[in-house]
Amino acid sequence: MWTVKVVSLGVVALSLSLELLFWLFSRRRSERITNKVLFFPSEVACVEHIFSPTLPHSHVCSLPHGVDTSFSRLLRYILSACSSLDLCLFSFSNMDLSRAVLLLHSRGVTIRVLTDKVYSAISGSQIGVLRKAGICVRCDVSAVHMHHKFAVVDGRTLITGSLNWTLTAVQSNMENIIITEEPDLVQPFVKEFCRLWGLNDSAQYLSSLTD
Amino acid sequence: MWTVKVVSLGVVALSLSLELLFWLFSRRRSERITNKVLFFPSEVACVEHIFSPTLPHSHVCSLPHGVDTSFSRLLRYILSACSSLDLCLFSFSNMDLSRAVLLLHSRGVTIRVLTDKVYSAISGSQIGVLRKAGICVRCDVSAVHMHHKFAVVDGRTLITGSLNWTLTAVQSNMENIIITEEPDLVQPFVKEFCRLWGLNDSAQYLSSLTD
Repeated sequence: MWTVKVVSLGVVALSLSLELLFWLFSRRRSERITNKVLFFPSEVACVEHIFSPTLPHSHVCSLPHGVDTSFSRLLRYILSACSSLDLCLFSFSNMDLSRAVLLLHSRGVTIRVLTDKVYSAISGSQIGVLRKAGICVRCDVSAVHMHHKFAVVDGRTLITGSLNWTLTAVQSNMENIIITEEPDLVQPFVKEFCRLWGLNDSAQYLSSLTD
Repeated sequence: MWTVKVVSLGVVALSLSLELLFWLFSRRRSERITNKVLFFPSEVACVEHIFSPTLPHSHVCSLPHGVDTSFSRLLRYILSACSSLDLCLFSFSNMDLSRAVLLLHSRGVTIRVLTDKVYSAISGSQIGVLRKAGICVRCDVSAVHMHHKFAVVDGRTLITGSLNWTLTAVQSNMENIIITEEPDLVQPFVKEFCRLWGLNDSAQYLSSLTD
């Protein structure tokens, strides 16, 4: 009788433990997946501390310091890249975002920039600056607009929305950005980036023109 | 001894059943949540069957029929609205999307449209058509652009991305749209829509000007 009791209680304990472990695992998984939304215009504040966390910046600029804004959060998500950053951007003229990309490049992060041919040449565009720094840039060669505004950080975090990477979009317009790690949302963008990147390989494009 | 055995086995059975139920519930919940991505330009195809499923349309237009495209999927998501549709759109000139919104309005779906003041007045804009049909439209009264391109269906499905509701965006540009039911993504947009809707209440706006 004691053996039956002990075995039965053991099975109950094991079953309940499994249930608890399963619950904790599900909970941790859903907590781990980032799903955030940022709205703009962002409050105008100093972002120097994001680029150089150890330096005192109160004297560097006259903007408010230590303020957590939509833009500072966006910068932090971009700067969180450890291995790769894929950018697919209609317009890129924001100098702080350009500085963030250059900083990642200097850290050895692999960066690929795909942008719209027409908007890459407008006044204030940062595309030339990125190219000069040795970052791999491809311009969309089709007759239409490459109107995407998305970034993929380390192949697993998607940053996308209505926001072009310009100062007007960040500081003036009403805009939105989603930051997500949901595989069902991230993977199609990873795949689409690879498709467009291959499609706009200038070597391939030039050879198809001469065929 | 038999009582102990029966009680113990009963507890084991109950515990395992609870575990199974919990697993099934978690599985069903994650399957139920929509997370889709659509890329554009969309293949050009007839969408008549989406508006009038029972009619034969092969003779109505010369476009390919019965083709599942990004645009036809977008239309279906919009037309799935049962109770409400909140639109926050920079530019709205696509006639098929306008037709979908008018159809929902005729079905009694509560529609609110918030749009950019400048772009609501450009040639081809559908904003006037919606207003004439009795749909509640508010224009952003600020000096900057209301650059959002999102829709919230029945308060629980978010449709957002780079795509303006224009023919060029749908048929020519490279664009993206996310359709999601993730509460962490949907709820901030629901809240932001309410905030902007209140902010652009023309009655409130006019009274603040005369204060």
